[in-house]
Amino acid sequence: MARYRDFAEGPGLLPPGTRNSITDVPGVAVGHRTIRRGSVNTGVTAILPQPGNLFRQKLTAAAEVVNGFGKSAGLVQLAELGLLETPVLLTNTFGVGRCVDALIGRMVAENPDIGRQTSTVNAVVGECNDGSLSDIQAMAVTEADAIAAMDAAGADFAEGSIGAGTGMTCFGFKGGIGSSSRQLNISGTTRHLGALVLANFGRAGDLVLPDGQRPDPRQPSRPESGSIIVVLATDMPVDQRQLQRICRRAGAGIARLGAFWGHGSGDIVLGFTTANRIPHDIEQDVLSMQRLHDSHIDDMFRAACEATEEAVLNALCAATAVEGQEGATRPLLSDWFNANA
Amino acid sequence: MARYRDFAEGPGLLPPGTRNSITDVPGVAVGHRTIRRGSVNTGVTAILPQPGNLFRQKLTAAAEVVNGFGKSAGLVQLAELGLLETPVLLTNTFGVGRCVDALIGRMVAENPDIGRQTSTVNAVVGECNDGSLSDIQAMAVTEADAIAAMDAAGADFAEGSIGAGTGMTCFGFKGGIGSSSRQLNISGTTRHLGALVLANFGRAGDLVLPDGQRPDPRQPSRPESGSIIVVLATDMPVDQRQLQRICRRAGAGIARLGAFWGHGSGDIVLGFTTANRIPHDIEQDVLSMQRLHDSHIDDMFRAACEATEEAVLNALCAATAVEGQEGATRPLLSDWFNANA
Amino acid sequence: MARYRDFAEGPGLLPPGTRNSITDVPGVAVGHRTIRRGSVNTGVTAILPQPGNLFRQKLTAAAEVVNGFGKSAGLVQLAELGLLETPVLLTNTFGVGRCVDALIGRMVAENPDIGRQTSTVNAVVGECNDGSLSDIQAMAVTEADAIAAMDAAGADFAEGSIGAGTGMTCFGFKGGIGSSSRQLNISGTTRHLGALVLANFGRAGDLVLPDGQRPDPRQPSRPESGSIIVVLATDMPVDQRQLQRICRRAGAGIARLGAFWGHGSGDIVLGFTTANRIPHDIEQDVLSMQRLHDSHIDDMFRAACEATEEAVLNALCAATAVEGQEGATRPLLSDWFNANA
Amino acid sequence: MARYRDFAEGPGLLPPGTRNSITDVPGVAVGHRTIRRGSVNTGVTAILPQPGNLFRQKLTAAAEVVNGFGKSAGLVQLAELGLLETPVLLTNTFGVGRCVDALIGRMVAENPDIGRQTSTVNAVVGECNDGSLSDIQAMAVTEADAIAAMDAAGADFAEGSIGAGTGMTCFGFKGGIGSSSRQLNISGTTRHLGALVLANFGRAGDLVLPDGQRPDPRQPSRPESGSIIVVLATDMPVDQRQLQRICRRAGAGIARLGAFWGHGSGDIVLGFTTANRIPHDIEQDVLSMQRLHDSHIDDMFRAACEATEEAVLNALCAATAVEGQEGATRPLLSDWFNANA
Repeated sequence: MARYRDFAEGPGLLPPGTRNSITDVPGVAVGHRTIRRGSVNTGVTAILPQPGNLFRQKLTAAAEVVNGFGKSAGLVQLAELGLLETPVLLTNTFGVGRCVDALIGRMVAENPDIGRQTSTVNAVVGECNDGSLSDIQAMAVTEADAIAAMDAAGADFAEGSIGAGTGMTCFGFKGGIGSSSRQLNISGTTRHLGALVLANFGRAGDLVLPDGQRPDPRQPSRPESGSIIVVLATDMPVDQRQLQRICRRAGAGIARLGAFWGHGSGDIVLGFTTANRIPHDIEQDVLSMQRLHDSHIDDMFRAACEATEEAVLNALCAATAVEGQEGATRPLLSDWFNANA
Repeated sequence: MARYRDFAEGPGLLPPGTRNSITDVPGVAVGHRTIRRGSVNTGVTAILPQPGNLFRQKLTAAAEVVNGFGKSAGLVQLAELGLLETPVLLTNTFGVGRCVDALIGRMVAENPDIGRQTSTVNAVVGECNDGSLSDIQAMAVTEADAIAAMDAAGADFAEGSIGAGTGMTCFGFKGGIGSSSRQLNISGTTRHLGALVLANFGRAGDLVLPDGQRPDPRQPSRPESGSIIVVLATDMPVDQRQLQRICRRAGAGIARLGAFWGHGSGDIVLGFTTANRIPHDIEQDVLSMQRLHDSHIDDMFRAACEATEEAVLNALCAATAVEGQEGATRPLLSDWFNANA
Repeated sequence: MARYRDFAEGPGLLPPGTRNSITDVPGVAVGHRTIRRGSVNTGVTAILPQPGNLFRQKLTAAAEVVNGFGKSAGLVQLAELGLLETPVLLTNTFGVGRCVDALIGRMVAENPDIGRQTSTVNAVVGECNDGSLSDIQAMAVTEADAIAAMDAAGADFAEGSIGAGTGMTCFGFKGGIGSSSRQLNISGTTRHLGALVLANFGRAGDLVLPDGQRPDPRQPSRPESGSIIVVLATDMPVDQRQLQRICRRAGAGIARLGAFWGHGSGDIVLGFTTANRIPHDIEQDVLSMQRLHDSHIDDMFRAACEATEEAVLNALCAATAVEGQEGATRPLLSDWFNANA
Repeated sequence: MARYRDFAEGPGLLPPGTRNSITDVPGVAVGHRTIRRGSVNTGVTAILPQPGNLFRQKLTAAAEVVNGFGKSAGLVQLAELGLLETPVLLTNTFGVGRCVDALIGRMVAENPDIGRQTSTVNAVVGECNDGSLSDIQAMAVTEADAIAAMDAAGADFAEGSIGAGTGMTCFGFKGGIGSSSRQLNISGTTRHLGALVLANFGRAGDLVLPDGQRPDPRQPSRPESGSIIVVLATDMPVDQRQLQRICRRAGAGIARLGAFWGHGSGDIVLGFTTANRIPHDIEQDVLSMQRLHDSHIDDMFRAACEATEEAVLNALCAATAVEGQEGATRPLLSDWFNANA
């Protein structure tokens, strides 16, 4: 599997983590379920933010809607409460309903008091429209697919045309799943910010590489539509306000690639921190929380921007050929690199 | 079916429409599908904003999140684009996924180009948690139920313990579906603003009637949790900015009843106007829109506040007894009125 | 000086603090500067959130714009950073500029590095339009007036037609400055939430008292315009997200009085907590913060709603007669109470 | 006066207007008042959105806060009502109060009913902190300076170290005022979107030119602080929702230059359209408005992104040397170009 650094120097100033992946954040795991049959090229990608019972020990989370032409589930409550209490699933636009049901089922199985002795649960699902390379009307994603993606999660995972990324298109090239990370040192402790993207955005011809090159996919130029979901994870102790500001900077990373958050593109960023777990059940009336001093937040902003940019580049470089309806295909950025080396 | 005006003078200054219902707005229709079997007391309520193909001729719409402890679908895109392109379905918290799928199915059937030659579709679903009177873990709502609710829609519809309102609780009393409207005259034309609520909010003991009385349900006082969805419809020509400001005033109507938008209550308002339909397909580069001058907007604010307040009171007065798990029931406000007459 | 509890039982369920005032929050001080000469009836009210250098030890703060027809200063930065670093000044709409300059001057005097070795300072000023009882075009407020208000601050302060409240009107009655508080016990510790309002809102005839009575000022009914600024203070440890949710509930208190946040009314809420001071200069990379568990936040919501409602009632009851241009006056709610006792 | 296109090809795909300036939008005028004495290097820049009485015939307007570390005036009301009713003034952070007063004075002079028979007026002022090249504590800007800037306004105006831009710094180079425009054809009519920036943002070393070059100012690298105000003008008929989405894309233009909207940078975008003037006094209950179909909005997004990027580059290229306190200076990008040609 190719990555951007196989072809060129990585973007930005900050060093990546060991895996250069969202799973550099300790405890984060990612899994895929790919569905390819006939004209269907779709799937589910699961981000498990932490081991253990997420509903009982929630994570501080935030969301930033860069452009809201999207159908994600769970953002309203996540924004109000600043909490993530389920894994995050990514899928195609018409698979959201089944992924929500799968998350409810899994959380109820782990917590039988949900909806009975305690509150319900807020399932978080992001989506992009893979209709140009997959028969989205088939509504192919099932609850079992979502469960399979969660069950497959680990620290090592594939990028490109896999899971939710199977049928995605990005700047006219084959898109999909990509990841990257940045490493920061605060008070002698090494922390990470990792990004995972479902990249399905960008008009053909608009892509700009970090060195200024503009690869041309020689595809007809259509409006920006299709969306990008960015998931940011960190083990830095930040509160929701800080986290939302960090999430906003993923939009800068997208813009540096040449996109302008097109009208038809649902560009949505979710972020969570693994620091400061919040108990569902009240154990103490007043919690003690750690919070980064805002004087250091610029490093997190830079990390979010750089990791998002490189995660998209990794999605583009790792993507492999997929044939959609009526033989539709997308060129590969790895081929462009090999031809222009 | 009892309504609040059977017991007392209606709240506010503005006159209601003929039906005192959201269906006073011409073209709006409402239908229910009620599910009562064993410990399941739930259902679906459908608001059809207008006849005809909503995807092809969209409506200007807005959403206001009064308190975001909720799992509604479709709000992100509705807020970004200011458009409603499907019916609005209301159901229990765990029925959202199936209602989304049902809306996708219906819209694709009417518009086979969705997700193929044109964009996907943004399904709008609101929910409350009826877990205290219904086995929400049963996930009883099916796509067929959602379709049935839409097929049942008409200008006359029942209120109270029906459709999505079947298992709802409000201020410790039996809650459910209620509606009301206000009539306004602008430039010699009669316009309406109608509200429909799924009322499942309010702490027992907090209810205040418009005349200052405080009916006590003699129920244990639990935290405000459960939510209210308010759907506002109007035929007044307003733009999205105005519509969102109108939606915000539904929160004032809720507050006047004694609630304070509790932490655990997902208090969400959706609004649409039937004026100024927006074509999906570009017919003209520049559209001509009508817009109320802001000098008249206070009447719309007052109407939203009053209609929401009275819609909740109608839900409470129309509600009939429902028995949940382990014989759980809620007292009826109509009984309180009859005992205190 | 009359207060609402001199005439009737106070609204709500929670007990007020000792003073039933924002200054029940330890360290909060309030001062006035009243300007009455000729047709000018205006002034400045200063809320000093804490003793000591606010710029060096900032407070967690939030703002909620209930209706944004207002010209307050400082809200953008306060919302982004969640910090208050100056006193809060209230004045008439055209006095904001001078109050901003006065705050800059005071903060620079205390911190000569502002705008040189360190960042600038974000002055926070709220305003209402007292033009119906004062010649606002006179631009009568000076920097010296703002300084005088700050210098006059203490735990005891007058309410009614004083300071910024001198020329204000509320529901057709004479309005002005009012305050109230609520007391809460968390983990055996007594905490307070206090509200101070500059009440200049509400249409004549719309006022509803907590017992359901509707005092009629027998004034011509004009549109809701004029605004209310609510300042909420607490010593409960809450973060900005929680604080903004608390601020939002002030809107419920306003609605219970019969207002619907009219188009022309700038209804703005500022909140701060004296817990968790945030150092301007970086002393530690990671701060340790206390935060109330959300399970207890409903008490804070209720407190904000009740204290805001009672603060407005106190403003109305304390107000004394003021004569504006061409002999304009407003009736007093205290007279109504005395006539209707 | 040098501009970016004197040194390199302009960024983006869309053609600029005749002047490549915000004044390509018919009726827009810009004027400066520069203050240079001793260690003071500051000023005021005025954007007059249209001739005639702005208070009586308002403009549709929107604001987008990219990063809210800023002290601009007038954004709250502008966002709520979607209206601009005064010129826009730009100045240094501590000059906002005087510019607000100057705008009030001018508007009252034109409309003596303000604050008496009709509402008050919402003055709009943007600011950046020029403290590194100017003695900001001197509070040098007077109302007369603001009036002088307005009186100097015309279609032709200087860029660089002038007006509000006199003491500004951008990516370690001398910054200031810059402008650019893009031309669009809709239905056979030529329309423009113009940007004017007050550029005072960006960390030294982060600047990326459109061709990928990274000019190094050889300045010590300090945190991003200082801000950018972007004013977008257009004659395209768009409503406030569309305009805010357009404003958001200015953030993409800033990001493409290498910034990530740093913590200490108040990055704020104001936009207005000269189409669809809104009367202050009610002439008709319902207004007829023109609105671009959203299918064409991507062109406006692209224009906002490109014009903002080029406006910053023009500010950098036009800037001339200014000496601040203790001989502080900033290198010029024009010198870098000349040295690297």
